[in-house]
Amino acid sequence: MTKPIYAPPIYDRVALIGLGLIASSMAHAMKQSGLAGEIVGYAKTEDTRRVAVEIGICDRVFGSAAEAVQGADLVVLAVPVGAMAEIAAEIGPHLSQGACVTDVGSVKQAVVDAVAPHIPAGVHFIPGHPIAGTEHSGPRSGFATLFQNRWWLLTPMPDSDPKAVARLRRLCEAMGANVDEMDVPHHDLVLAVTSHTPHLIAYTMVGVAEHMRRVSNSEIIKYSAGGFRDLTRIAASDPTMWRDVFLTNKEAVLDILGRFTEELFMLQRAIRMGDGEQLHAYFTRTRAIRRGIIEAGQDTAAPDFGRAAPAAKPGE
Amino acid sequence: MTKPIYAPPIYDRVALIGLGLIASSMAHAMKQSGLAGEIVGYAKTEDTRRVAVEIGICDRVFGSAAEAVQGADLVVLAVPVGAMAEIAAEIGPHLSQGACVTDVGSVKQAVVDAVAPHIPAGVHFIPGHPIAGTEHSGPRSGFATLFQNRWWLLTPMPDSDPKAVARLRRLCEAMGANVDEMDVPHHDLVLAVTSHTPHLIAYTMVGVAEHMRRVSNSEIIKYSAGGFRDLTRIAASDPTMWRDVFLTNKEAVLDILGRFTEELFMLQRAIRMGDGEQLHAYFTRTRAIRRGIIEAGQDTAAPDFGRAAPAAKPGE
Ligand SMILES: NC(=O)c1ccc[n+]([C@@H]2O[C@H](COP(=O)([O-])OP(=O)(O)OC[C@H]3O[C@@H](n4cnc5c(N)ncnc54)[C@H](OP(=O)(O)O)[C@@H]3O)[C@@H](O)[C@H]2O)c1
Ligand SMILES: NC(=O)c1ccc[n+]([C@@H]2O[C@H](COP(=O)([O-])OP(=O)(O)OC[C@H]3O[C@@H](n4cnc5c(N)ncnc54)[C@H](OP(=O)(O)O)[C@@H]3O)[C@@H](O)[C@H]2O)c1
Repeated sequence: MTKPIYAPPIYDRVALIGLGLIASSMAHAMKQSGLAGEIVGYAKTEDTRRVAVEIGICDRVFGSAAEAVQGADLVVLAVPVGAMAEIAAEIGPHLSQGACVTDVGSVKQAVVDAVAPHIPAGVHFIPGHPIAGTEHSGPRSGFATLFQNRWWLLTPMPDSDPKAVARLRRLCEAMGANVDEMDVPHHDLVLAVTSHTPHLIAYTMVGVAEHMRRVSNSEIIKYSAGGFRDLTRIAASDPTMWRDVFLTNKEAVLDILGRFTEELFMLQRAIRMGDGEQLHAYFTRTRAIRRGIIEAGQDTAAPDFGRAAPAAKPGE
Repeated sequence: MTKPIYAPPIYDRVALIGLGLIASSMAHAMKQSGLAGEIVGYAKTEDTRRVAVEIGICDRVFGSAAEAVQGADLVVLAVPVGAMAEIAAEIGPHLSQGACVTDVGSVKQAVVDAVAPHIPAGVHFIPGHPIAGTEHSGPRSGFATLFQNRWWLLTPMPDSDPKAVARLRRLCEAMGANVDEMDVPHHDLVLAVTSHTPHLIAYTMVGVAEHMRRVSNSEIIKYSAGGFRDLTRIAASDPTMWRDVFLTNKEAVLDILGRFTEELFMLQRAIRMGDGEQLHAYFTRTRAIRRGIIEAGQDTAAPDFGRAAPAAKPGE
């Protein structure tokens, strides 16, 4: 597959603040297609900064976020949501006129509240969120195709400059993503349903399994292929990131959790009463959503996500 | 990879009753390594029986289970748990002396209760359950490697003949599985934790998403890559199979559900109170289980289960 090389690049200097899964994937994708003239970066620890240069995701790193953003025409905040306010306060005075600041945080209202007050006039703030991820984290976990055929949501501010939005959109699309715009509260509700609450119940189920006395952890691990392992993947993501998500998208998550418990109690009652018809009808409806996801190209229909032994082919 | 050809085969004639995912995968695996002299079958609908012969998973099919089991030295009951009793009553009088009857049902106490009374003296009944599956079903969904490196649990009866158990174990191992023996109630508890309750909460979460008014199904589908799609896979399995599982493993599932709700309420409270420390500690503990599963070879560590775009390689 030959990739178009963008000449000139979309941004001259991109500053990545935070150098984990998302930032490093962006770096790989931008390098692959020449989307940025230069990529500079900052992360909290010396170790991450060193690795970033070593594996080539940053051309240069700096000892502070304030230094890293100087002269950048795009600044990407790719730290846990809870760390955004402090970073924004620090970089505010050092942002270049005309620069664009975006973020990739999984929650949007909290980021807007934390960051917007620190953005000086003449700098464009356009919050964003790529709906793509894995359970891995850190600068070595990124890869160029993470955003391929995934959605990147932008939640521009009412006064965002359309030209600045269009340019950022072009970058996301050049990294392989599809871009949608939506308003901030709707984003947080949609994500509470499609990501945040699913993660919480996965964490809970794994926690329940771990606390069982009569079933050993080694049994749970050995016999996990019956469904449990799929939950463990989403319950293996970075604890700091997820703590911040739940603390900052509290209202929407509590709302969805309330509905979840209500519905779970209904199914629990159907089991207790032996109401097979209700269970069957419920399990039939949920299949349609799965079909939709596969048709939309957001998952594979391969048995076992294609992770069955390599020789496996349906009907072979 | 060259496969050993078992000569002589482990069983002369295997009768598969039910020709869905599990039975057809067994057929492919047995054919690949010559484990059965002949494979015959029966399924409820004419259509399935026709397909089974057409795609070669059965050498012959019969219009009734009673006919199919005649002369077989291994009979495999591979129908939904709720259909076992009727089948057992039908085949009981037609089983050959010295034959072995096993099943692959996801629940064991209910199958033992349903089947054991119909097994005549001189026939060995050895319940079993392969911990392997996909969300697909029907005769075309099987593949030879489904059981590769997966666990196959046998729950022999107190009076099961050790030689008959050893022979069945040899078959499971020859299909690529590891075999463990455990007692019936423990099986049902372990599976309630590692499979049944995870499926129920996945179904519930998908149901909640589907019922949302303020978030459209198309939004849920588009933005599913944030975690939701992993739940939809396990919530897409066959409704009849899962109805039967919940109705027949009621006690254990209700027990685990009670614990689940308890734990979920604790996390919900931590979110409401803003207790970040408790959330972080909880999310950290659950990671260890994930590591165990990968080390035990029951899942892949590849980002996104290896379903990211083909070019994806961490650190590329
Ligand atoms: N992972 C996903 O699936 C996913 C998907 C979509 C969006 N997001 C969002 O993307 C953002 C980053 O997530 P990620 O998965 O890329 O995280 P990650 O791999 O855990 O990396 C986080 C990065 O942020 C840095 N960092 C943390 N606290 C910091 C601070 N106070 N000051 C400066 N740097 C700090 C870390 O530096 P050190 O390495 O030096 O500690 C690390 O480089 C989060 O807001 C998350 O909500 C994540
Ligand atoms: N799927 C899994 O992940 C999985 C994993 C481990 C164990 N199991 C267990 O394996 C068993 C079979 O599951 P599966 O996934 O292979 O099912 P499946 O693909 O849905 O196939 C079920 C088969 O049973 C037949 N059947 C249904 N009711 C019947 C009846 N009353 N009389 C005769 N045949 C009948 C069906 O015939 P028609 O096609 O003619 O309707 C079909 O051939 C179940 O007990 C399940 O609990 C499943």
